[in-house]
Amino acid sequence: MKKVGIIMGSDSDLPILKKTADMLDELQIPYEVHVYSAHRTPEAVQEFAANAKKNGFGVLIAAAGMAAHLGGVVASWTTLPVIGIPCKSSVLDGMDALLATVMMPSGIPVATVAINGGANAALLAAQILALSDEELDKRLAEKRKADAEKVLKKDEGIESRIRES
Amino acid sequence: MKKVGIIMGSDSDLPILKKTADMLDELQIPYEVHVYSAHRTPEAVQEFAANAKKNGFGVLIAAAGMAAHLGGVVASWTTLPVIGIPCKSSVLDGMDALLATVMMPSGIPVATVAINGGANAALLAAQILALSDEELDKRLAEKRKADAEKVLKKDEGIESRIRES
Amino acid sequence: MKKVGIIMGSDSDLPILKKTADMLDELQIPYEVHVYSAHRTPEAVQEFAANAKKNGFGVLIAAAGMAAHLGGVVASWTTLPVIGIPCKSSVLDGMDALLATVMMPSGIPVATVAINGGANAALLAAQILALSDEELDKRLAEKRKADAEKVLKKDEGIESRIRES
Amino acid sequence: MKKVGIIMGSDSDLPILKKTADMLDELQIPYEVHVYSAHRTPEAVQEFAANAKKNGFGVLIAAAGMAAHLGGVVASWTTLPVIGIPCKSSVLDGMDALLATVMMPSGIPVATVAINGGANAALLAAQILALSDEELDKRLAEKRKADAEKVLKKDEGIESRIRES
Amino acid sequence: MKKVGIIMGSDSDLPILKKTADMLDELQIPYEVHVYSAHRTPEAVQEFAANAKKNGFGVLIAAAGMAAHLGGVVASWTTLPVIGIPCKSSVLDGMDALLATVMMPSGIPVATVAINGGANAALLAAQILALSDEELDKRLAEKRKADAEKVLKKDEGIESRIRES
Amino acid sequence: MKKVGIIMGSDSDLPILKKTADMLDELQIPYEVHVYSAHRTPEAVQEFAANAKKNGFGVLIAAAGMAAHLGGVVASWTTLPVIGIPCKSSVLDGMDALLATVMMPSGIPVATVAINGGANAALLAAQILALSDEELDKRLAEKRKADAEKVLKKDEGIESRIRES
Amino acid sequence: MKKVGIIMGSDSDLPILKKTADMLDELQIPYEVHVYSAHRTPEAVQEFAANAKKNGFGVLIAAAGMAAHLGGVVASWTTLPVIGIPCKSSVLDGMDALLATVMMPSGIPVATVAINGGANAALLAAQILALSDEELDKRLAEKRKADAEKVLKKDEGIESRIRES
Amino acid sequence: MKKVGIIMGSDSDLPILKKTADMLDELQIPYEVHVYSAHRTPEAVQEFAANAKKNGFGVLIAAAGMAAHLGGVVASWTTLPVIGIPCKSSVLDGMDALLATVMMPSGIPVATVAINGGANAALLAAQILALSDEELDKRLAEKRKADAEKVLKKDEGIESRIRES
Repeated sequence: MKKVGIIMGSDSDLPILKKTADMLDELQIPYEVHVYSAHRTPEAVQEFAANAKKNGFGVLIAAAGMAAHLGGVVASWTTLPVIGIPCKSSVLDGMDALLATVMMPSGIPVATVAINGGANAALLAAQILALSDEELDKRLAEKRKADAEKVLKKDEGIESRIRES
Repeated sequence: MKKVGIIMGSDSDLPILKKTADMLDELQIPYEVHVYSAHRTPEAVQEFAANAKKNGFGVLIAAAGMAAHLGGVVASWTTLPVIGIPCKSSVLDGMDALLATVMMPSGIPVATVAINGGANAALLAAQILALSDEELDKRLAEKRKADAEKVLKKDEGIESRIRES
Repeated sequence: MKKVGIIMGSDSDLPILKKTADMLDELQIPYEVHVYSAHRTPEAVQEFAANAKKNGFGVLIAAAGMAAHLGGVVASWTTLPVIGIPCKSSVLDGMDALLATVMMPSGIPVATVAINGGANAALLAAQILALSDEELDKRLAEKRKADAEKVLKKDEGIESRIRES
Repeated sequence: MKKVGIIMGSDSDLPILKKTADMLDELQIPYEVHVYSAHRTPEAVQEFAANAKKNGFGVLIAAAGMAAHLGGVVASWTTLPVIGIPCKSSVLDGMDALLATVMMPSGIPVATVAINGGANAALLAAQILALSDEELDKRLAEKRKADAEKVLKKDEGIESRIRES
Repeated sequence: MKKVGIIMGSDSDLPILKKTADMLDELQIPYEVHVYSAHRTPEAVQEFAANAKKNGFGVLIAAAGMAAHLGGVVASWTTLPVIGIPCKSSVLDGMDALLATVMMPSGIPVATVAINGGANAALLAAQILALSDEELDKRLAEKRKADAEKVLKKDEGIESRIRES
Repeated sequence: MKKVGIIMGSDSDLPILKKTADMLDELQIPYEVHVYSAHRTPEAVQEFAANAKKNGFGVLIAAAGMAAHLGGVVASWTTLPVIGIPCKSSVLDGMDALLATVMMPSGIPVATVAINGGANAALLAAQILALSDEELDKRLAEKRKADAEKVLKKDEGIESRIRES
Repeated sequence: MKKVGIIMGSDSDLPILKKTADMLDELQIPYEVHVYSAHRTPEAVQEFAANAKKNGFGVLIAAAGMAAHLGGVVASWTTLPVIGIPCKSSVLDGMDALLATVMMPSGIPVATVAINGGANAALLAAQILALSDEELDKRLAEKRKADAEKVLKKDEGIESRIRES
Repeated sequence: MKKVGIIMGSDSDLPILKKTADMLDELQIPYEVHVYSAHRTPEAVQEFAANAKKNGFGVLIAAAGMAAHLGGVVASWTTLPVIGIPCKSSVLDGMDALLATVMMPSGIPVATVAINGGANAALLAAQILALSDEELDKRLAEKRKADAEKVLKKDEGIESRIRES
């Protein structure tokens, strides 16, 4: 299976990407993790992104906060699908990172998930890779079913929780 | 090749999705177009989305404005990758549609592109499908190169334009 | 009396809906509570909403955060009045849920109350049910009067509190 | 049948409320229309709202722009359900009116619809009145069905429109 | 001297208005404090505001959060100058209260100060009353001078603080 | 009677301040108008503001767009009440000017009216000056009454307008 | 004198940068203009920025709209001062470009001017270059004086314009 | 070398400016620090800014929160480059200060860095001064290299951290 490449702009985003890694582990998808800053290490980003396809990557996930350029910069060096995770930093609640990630001009899309959406970035990567991997496709369907069952399990107990709380 | 399914919540979004269709045509990707409202025709959305995989679709694109639920509702009935295009309507400049599309809770991602980002939705779909289609992958690389050349062509003429305008 | 149906998209919204339940208890209005996710359990939402009228419900209350689709999805399966409570989640202070709940397109309204407005959702449901229930109407009038008296009671003591604090 | 009372804060909001009136006409619901300003004619608002119940009204609809206090002020004088329509004015795209209408403090709800949501305010009023009016309930169900058919009609023609446009 | 009337929509705003009261005390301006809710006690607000002029008030200060209608409602019953303090509540950081206070339609101004600007509301009231009170005018000028000296005092010590911290 | 001083940061704000001037004319309040930029002519602003009191001004009105510093800068040189009008410019709909005008730090208030609120700035100035001018106070009361009558006049005709439009 | 390098992400930003060029011409500062897209021509941006210092540039100006990464990407390849102009595009009024330009993480500043602030970018570049160029410094001082005189000229005529308009 | 002048509007901004001072120390750039309020001490600001050039300053850094006028007011009295740091205060997350700092009208630019961007203000000042100081230019290049190495160091350890956390 093709690998997922995870890049974070700063290791302060690690808790968000831990969720990404855990979800990829759960779905048995191989991945690599890197800390590369679009601004402080532009050459490392360029080298990683430009060679990602031939190095066996199928999807790249870029997470960054503030003026979050990482997703766009990664996407500018490859035609692999790039998923952007806007990360909340100390001000503006991630709105800056969201707009800087999603509002890409025509020609270079970044598939943006919710602010701090680490798990969904992994799921989206999985959905993409599952198009040519039936086993993964089944695991995704099972996970979806299990998620529904968790909700319905909570539904069973909610009446007593709300009346007793 | 797997088809792309394009769904718009209202035919007032047609000009945005015309750009999607044109880009898919340019990249020689087959597609189907539908008008299905998440709220006025929930059954049609459910039926289309739940059967999309077995009907030969590989990626779904959902475009909607205001409280844009279409992407999320489509995604709730399938594990295919779903791309959301938030559309600007008469107020709030598409910020409502952007938040209603991108801020999906954990479990059900929607790959969101820019407000009114019709062409980028098609490109993202193409990048996804190109993972298992070398010919498409080449067409994408050529398009990227052609886009760069268009920019550089404009660069050549800009000095005279700015000094004469 | 017709029942009120309370649906929350996630049991993390329980504290908000506890206020809803307490207010309904205070006004002696029967209700049922459920945890159903618009995205993870679309079939459960559909089944509940589509059958709500014949199952004795008069008003439905839907509470959700982030890209809060629950109110709109519930409303798409019934013509009962649906009240939406946008819930604050970890980022954006509930603005995402507010816009995703209130900006419904023409044809499918969701009666939206304030972000985290659990008590007001119950009061609005009561005002609706009171149109055909004189006893409830009286209880609402008494509550309104009691609320006013509480304010005026605080008014009496405020001078001394502000001068001593 | 109980009447719907429509109040606009300024006659510049007439085009929005024309949609409300047309929808009520279509659903055969009787209504009265008024121009009363929360700030310039507080006594007229008070008198109308305080006597609305005994004058045969079942639901009140208040439309205002800018610091839209009308819905809240109307609601402060009655326990009838009050529907608020935030209207876009010359700046801020209606965000001011939305927040001033929906963010009501605990005790006095205003059932808020979308910015400029004139038709949905009427539909919400109809859904409320239909709880005790089976004929109206049927008309609502028929309208919902007709709306769905309109969408599906557009779906039929969309392929040719997008490929020819 | 004419009195200042301070009205808060809820006693949860007391900490903000304590600053107002302290500043009025410091400037030796008489005042009265009340808790009146625009929505829960509309009659008390009306009675207080409509009679404020003849009861010896010169300026009214209204503080409220969320859909902050209090300033506008007070202003609708009097032609005295009304100062509005938008108060931050649990979500949206006071932006809702700011827009609901400042965006008054033509005819009924509310002199709005900063979110949570309790002290400045008192200073503005003082500046207004000082137009016909030379002693107060002098106290204001002295306070302005003392404020400047406090800043300059801090300026003296800042070099050592920044180099040692 | 004390004069009102009107300062605009740029003559592009003239249409807003024409409403101010017209309202002052209607209320028979003397005024002076100036174009002074806080940034391009700081000395002129300083000289005008610092001498306004002794030159017979009672209230100053400052109108500016973008990073609207004019109100605050004027207020820094005088203890006269300063009314700020945030003006909409070509982007951001006046939100920048609103925040730059209203969010004044403790010590220097600016009495802020709505974005583009030219008429209300004049009314607020009149309400302030009327505290020591009974004739003006009467004119304000009459204007308030006339405004109410205009609304009620529109109320009379609205039923026919909405049903015929 | 060192040159100013002007880069625009798209030639649709030309009208904004025409103001930059005109101001540089007026101040007799040499400049070069380029169209380079951060995303479509990352290599051209890299080459230009990385070699700018040795090619005689002293300040770089980058103008872009939407997810405006250009300023940050340019700054990542050079330690020359980089001035960013956020450009308004078809939605969001330039707020996306502003946040994507100004909210740079620690280490790589972009000196941001107002949305569409083409002339101010040139002035800021001139102020920077004037630190080591006395003649330019004089021209800047003269321009500042001339600007003030233009304002005062408008001040002279404003009374008659407002009273006659 | 020319000095950097640091001005803060309030000593509550000291933690932000400590980062500025530390970075200037690291780059061996001389500086002075002041607390001057644009509103409470306008004369001190004027005197400092108007004489800054002849007193040996090359760049001025102004930090302020809320309606942050300090940068603009400083810039109005000098043609030295002025860097503005918008500071977060107790509400609105610094958005008020950002808009009040960056949205300067044509003629008077303020080079704005990120909200709370104390370190970047120092780096920008250094980049400006380095245009005529080769030694400083080298220190900047070394710092940039060291920053990149820190990122790459973190990259080495990230795989183990994410898999073990």
